[in-house]
Amino acid sequence: MSSPSSWVIPPLNEKVTEHVQQAIDNKTKPPGSLGKLESLALQLAKTQLTSSDSGPLVIEKPAILVFAADHGISRHNVSIAPAEVTQQMVLNFLAGGAAINCFCGLHDVQLSVIDAGMLNALSSTSAHYFEHRLGAGTQDISVQDAMSQEQLSQGLNFGAQIAKLHIEAGSNVLGFGEMGIGNTSSAAALLCAYSGLEASKVVGRGTGISDAQYDAKVELIQRSLDRVAAAQKASVNQTEYILAALGGFEIVQMIGAMLATAEQGKTVVVDGFIASVAALYACAIAPRTKSYMVFAHVGAERSHQMVLNLMNVQPLLDLGMRLGEGTGAALAMPMLRSAVAFYNEMATFESANVDV
Amino acid sequence: MSSPSSWVIPPLNEKVTEHVQQAIDNKTKPPGSLGKLESLALQLAKTQLTSSDSGPLVIEKPAILVFAADHGISRHNVSIAPAEVTQQMVLNFLAGGAAINCFCGLHDVQLSVIDAGMLNALSSTSAHYFEHRLGAGTQDISVQDAMSQEQLSQGLNFGAQIAKLHIEAGSNVLGFGEMGIGNTSSAAALLCAYSGLEASKVVGRGTGISDAQYDAKVELIQRSLDRVAAAQKASVNQTEYILAALGGFEIVQMIGAMLATAEQGKTVVVDGFIASVAALYACAIAPRTKSYMVFAHVGAERSHQMVLNLMNVQPLLDLGMRLGEGTGAALAMPMLRSAVAFYNEMATFESANVDV
Repeated sequence: MSSPSSWVIPPLNEKVTEHVQQAIDNKTKPPGSLGKLESLALQLAKTQLTSSDSGPLVIEKPAILVFAADHGISRHNVSIAPAEVTQQMVLNFLAGGAAINCFCGLHDVQLSVIDAGMLNALSSTSAHYFEHRLGAGTQDISVQDAMSQEQLSQGLNFGAQIAKLHIEAGSNVLGFGEMGIGNTSSAAALLCAYSGLEASKVVGRGTGISDAQYDAKVELIQRSLDRVAAAQKASVNQTEYILAALGGFEIVQMIGAMLATAEQGKTVVVDGFIASVAALYACAIAPRTKSYMVFAHVGAERSHQMVLNLMNVQPLLDLGMRLGEGTGAALAMPMLRSAVAFYNEMATFESANVDV
Repeated sequence: MSSPSSWVIPPLNEKVTEHVQQAIDNKTKPPGSLGKLESLALQLAKTQLTSSDSGPLVIEKPAILVFAADHGISRHNVSIAPAEVTQQMVLNFLAGGAAINCFCGLHDVQLSVIDAGMLNALSSTSAHYFEHRLGAGTQDISVQDAMSQEQLSQGLNFGAQIAKLHIEAGSNVLGFGEMGIGNTSSAAALLCAYSGLEASKVVGRGTGISDAQYDAKVELIQRSLDRVAAAQKASVNQTEYILAALGGFEIVQMIGAMLATAEQGKTVVVDGFIASVAALYACAIAPRTKSYMVFAHVGAERSHQMVLNLMNVQPLLDLGMRLGEGTGAALAMPMLRSAVAFYNEMATFESANVDV
């Protein structure tokens, strides 16, 4: 099993920057006028091109990987829905009825679903369903560590495996989403542990919980944080310790998948709050991972904006969404393709006989 | 010729609201979690459905109409490019080399280009090119009215004609963009005249002008505003007077096209700053037009945000763009299709056996 510190992320090819920026500025438009699409094209160019190569850029077989898992903390009824809904929604993904199915279908994005550790295993023969179970849900983080260090390592490996599988099949852009009743609690706890903020400063209302549920959620997460702070040993790798103590099976697998995608030099599209927290930890493990990341959107929850601020990144979209499932990542795919299209296809001032 | 006051915009079908909102809330997702896509689906439903009809929603043959014209004020060298660039860029549109071509091609959107009054006519046999010339550019608004009342009326009619032509050909969503060196000056003047703000509060840097050009641009626009304020007669319809005094041929044709699209009960997708100012005036002429409008994006220029604030509307995208050409409208089309897709295709809690 690989240790979290063993990832080797190649640097982006900065050598192409000047050449690519010049190509972008020679397109028939005022410099910078395509805004975020220009930065995105440059990022994709530095990911894809070699120094002697001017393109074209490609988005090949983009895929969304949705990791599903259950959370011990959900027994406290701090979510809008009971834990059973994790599996019900996974069945919905497999039947094609969820939002992520509609968006993937519309935008020509492949969808894969991974059981990272739901309460109960499913039997599905779908070629896009993967069983990478780390257990029947995590432990309740308010009373004990979510998972063991072995489970964490296995989770990172599982995530890496699934990313590599898609890359070997030809994908060069992978989006990451999740489904897991209770996982906003885990993600909020991870964000608090990372930032030092108290639970009350971070926890959002989730997807429509009551005031009483909200108060209980804040209290549970703070209790989890206090437990971890008391138990934390200086000798242990902090990131590993915190991930095992407060993480979720889908979160740690997303982290492994993001790291492996960057390791393979491919683009990581980060979805919502939970995926953004996974991205935060992936970058804590291997900071260079960030250069491969595209942040698809900022959601309606303040905690999502907080994690993007912590990472000092600009999201592409701001649609007021808070669904997860990779839906924001799927909606960002037409924007990635738009960046590639203008870079590959637009005329230059010279070729179009337009005065600069 | 129709008078600006003769537009009859049908109300949206509010009778479907409850039914449609219920359908949206029954989809397998927390209520409201698709954010702006939910409001968009509701707006499209109220535009398209009858009271007894639950769908599906459709985006049929979406088209972007790009209106091109020249501006007398451009002789003062307040733009990044000389007036010749208007026509050069139109030739670029017709040759397929501009940003709008890439985005329309990628997102399956038809592109039509209208000569609303460039300095020189073109000869093009393209089926998507229309000659609706109101003259060889407007007059210099800093010294005299941009156009006559007759030209204004003819412009509104031309715009209405082109919109109807596309609707008769089967389009139910029309996006509006423009090309015209100098047209940010005209649009800024129109925004000032509408809002009462001084030129210095509204004028943006455009697409990269120098400090000296910026100061000259502010001074020219303020001079135009002062001229109009002095000349304005209380007896004249204010909106008509101001449009003829400060407008542009592409701007008034966009206004006519927006009004006609709403009159036909179809969706208007508004692009950037110039198109948003056209939208502002279309709504001043017939306020109900606003209910048919989707605001594609907010651009990098503060004046674009100002006009959206004045209209109290939320843009879909915020990509830091400031190009015009309908590029923001084209990029919004995948979002409209996403709203339609989730509305038409997502399973309900009941059909998917997901606990509410």
